[in-house]
Amino acid sequence: MELPVDADRLRADIEANAAFGAIEFDDPAKRGRTNRTGSEANRRARDRLTERLEAAGLSVRVDAVGNVVGEWVPAEADPDAAPVACGSHLDSVPEGGIFDGPLGVYAALESVRAMQDAGVEPVRPVVVVCFTEEEGATYGTGLLGSSVAIGETSVEEALAFENDDGETLGAALDEIGYRGDATVDPSGWEGFYELHIEQDTTLEDAGADVGVVTTITGITHGEATIVGEANHAGATAMDERADALAAASQFVLDVEAAAASVVESDSPTAVGTVGSLEVAPGASNVVPGRVEASLDVRDVTAESMETIVAAARDALDRIERDRGVDTTFVQPASVDPVPMSARLRTTAHEAATDADVTAIDLHSGAAHDAMRVARVTDASLLFAPSRDGISHNPREWTDWDDCAVATQVLAGGLARAAGVDAGECGHRRGETSSQGSNSTV
Amino acid sequence: MELPVDADRLRADIEANAAFGAIEFDDPAKRGRTNRTGSEANRRARDRLTERLEAAGLSVRVDAVGNVVGEWVPAEADPDAAPVACGSHLDSVPEGGIFDGPLGVYAALESVRAMQDAGVEPVRPVVVVCFTEEEGATYGTGLLGSSVAIGETSVEEALAFENDDGETLGAALDEIGYRGDATVDPSGWEGFYELHIEQDTTLEDAGADVGVVTTITGITHGEATIVGEANHAGATAMDERADALAAASQFVLDVEAAAASVVESDSPTAVGTVGSLEVAPGASNVVPGRVEASLDVRDVTAESMETIVAAARDALDRIERDRGVDTTFVQPASVDPVPMSARLRTTAHEAATDADVTAIDLHSGAAHDAMRVARVTDASLLFAPSRDGISHNPREWTDWDDCAVATQVLAGGLARAAGVDAGECGHRRGETSSQGSNSTV
Repeated sequence: MELPVDADRLRADIEANAAFGAIEFDDPAKRGRTNRTGSEANRRARDRLTERLEAAGLSVRVDAVGNVVGEWVPAEADPDAAPVACGSHLDSVPEGGIFDGPLGVYAALESVRAMQDAGVEPVRPVVVVCFTEEEGATYGTGLLGSSVAIGETSVEEALAFENDDGETLGAALDEIGYRGDATVDPSGWEGFYELHIEQDTTLEDAGADVGVVTTITGITHGEATIVGEANHAGATAMDERADALAAASQFVLDVEAAAASVVESDSPTAVGTVGSLEVAPGASNVVPGRVEASLDVRDVTAESMETIVAAARDALDRIERDRGVDTTFVQPASVDPVPMSARLRTTAHEAATDADVTAIDLHSGAAHDAMRVARVTDASLLFAPSRDGISHNPREWTDWDDCAVATQVLAGGLARAAGVDAGECGHRRGETSSQGSNSTV
Repeated sequence: MELPVDADRLRADIEANAAFGAIEFDDPAKRGRTNRTGSEANRRARDRLTERLEAAGLSVRVDAVGNVVGEWVPAEADPDAAPVACGSHLDSVPEGGIFDGPLGVYAALESVRAMQDAGVEPVRPVVVVCFTEEEGATYGTGLLGSSVAIGETSVEEALAFENDDGETLGAALDEIGYRGDATVDPSGWEGFYELHIEQDTTLEDAGADVGVVTTITGITHGEATIVGEANHAGATAMDERADALAAASQFVLDVEAAAASVVESDSPTAVGTVGSLEVAPGASNVVPGRVEASLDVRDVTAESMETIVAAARDALDRIERDRGVDTTFVQPASVDPVPMSARLRTTAHEAATDADVTAIDLHSGAAHDAMRVARVTDASLLFAPSRDGISHNPREWTDWDDCAVATQVLAGGLARAAGVDAGECGHRRGETSSQGSNSTV
């Protein structure tokens, strides 16, 4: 039995969703949207998802923070069996791309429709989920919906988060009609699949169709403050200065060198970044007196992250001694690396083999809802290729065929996890779907 | 004949002026003011100056950009002889100190009063001048009044400059009643003295009372732009990055090293500063894609300034090659070093010797109106000590005794330049003035 994914139907869904908050560009290479949680564009995106879920026979519920779930209970399934879930998010960063999030939500729905079209009957219900505020671009905290769903963040805390206009998430969800009363509890799921764009070039470079994530990297955020002495740039001799920016520049280069050293010797996936640097007073004719610099360290092992953070701390100590500045370092947030489920990874690779698709293992340097869900049940994250690795940008792009191929693997993995016999869901790349569409893979 | 400077009278003037735009601080070590050109505080400061000039018998005129001059024509003087001028400015930076500018204006007036009190009769008229918008803090261009006076900037151009509220200088001067119709022409002056606070610690470190500036350093401003590639801080491997901030950090350190090298080998007065650095997008989780950095290079010779600027350009070329970023460098403004008049420097040293005051030669790293006036006539810049070198800050401080001692030297230099016999103006430090004030020096 075949498990056909309809590439045109998937594309139509993603393109329809892209219209909500769409940004017009003269440049045809740019296609962007701003879909902020709680906005009118967000309401319309949610309304359309609800409508499409219901059109496919899924029963839709909304929880207290606006997470939307649609459940398909196949005729042969035990309605009380732990469901298998699949999904991602619909919110975007300002001027983001059209694939980051929506691909995973609509690929999940397409997987369900593919099973329905093929007449396969999983023994478990299948849940399609759209998590609220994954990006954190509007209410300041990413992975918000999934964090509430697994009980890490309370509903009350989440609803009290405010956007830049001072509106709470609770009020915004009320306004758009997405503050529901259902409960979404991933700990009751048999497993969870998320398909996302890679946002990097590993797949492109390898010529692979799909990535199967082994580990979502841990993240440590740090804030370094360097205080020197602001002084007249003309009247202060070079040897009398305590230049906070020169000191901070040394810090930036030391962080870069520390990460490169860990990459070289130990862990090729390690990264260390100073992305934000605020200089005060920041006038061309004043020796800088104070700099605040961010630190972002990620890797697949906590040990290598700690090596980089320790090197950053050492660098600040050395800079303090050498340059007569004061430094402080705080680490407000740290998340350990999250390994993905070995079982679901294997299932995904099997689905890829069945579909004659090249799948490779890789890590995710970015956070995704799957890393929250992984705390309470088996979770797997799949990647589709990103052209040039560009994301959070209107130039973000994944070819429609690549979307469909990755969805084919997702559907196969999901069907297996939901209890469909492996023999039932083979459908090789390039074969014609039951709809006869020539763009079906 | 003595030439007594009345320390109390000078202090009273500076303190009265400090009230205009005064900022209240709980900390007794802080005493600040915001006296923006064209503001109500500025009107009151000018009104009081006018009143004090007239009280001393000076005839007051105001030119088209609000430069205020008071002229004293002594009874024995030739009213048509080229006058000797002396002064500074009353405007301040936001939250500036109370001495930067006002010391020079009121020390000039005090010098005239000292000559009057002592009964000395110069053969030339003496002009006290207050230049408009020296700081450039409100209309964006420093040394504005002196630039117009010497004809470098046209009246029309100056009056059209706008403040942050979009009000032109012309409209602001109309409003406060200081758009006059007189002409101030420094090219007709026999010479010009400016007393200013040092804004550095050379005098303090040397234990000297007065600084006689040899050269006002030249200034080159540059703007470097470094363009890399903004990318996800988690998903972009270390060896795939074109990190504009890491590149800019190398630039900052290279500029610092280049200036230090010139100091070491060649010119101890050389300075090179990156004071402003703007990072885009400036998010902790994004590899920086673009940095704009300022460059400020100053020294007493054009050659050493060029050495540092050339090193900065070379650094950008090297960074471009090494790091795969694009760089551009523009030099919007450059002013050559300005030597002060040897004749007036000698006169100042003689006055210091007469007053038993320690005077040393030094350079000025900061720009002052004297550097504009020096283009059209002999000019001399004297410095009073700044506590800890702090300036443009409510902690700016010069002891009242130090103000008076420096004014003593100014008065002596001015009297000599105005044609008073040297024998007439000796008045040694610590002697009692004709007013009998025990704080007179």
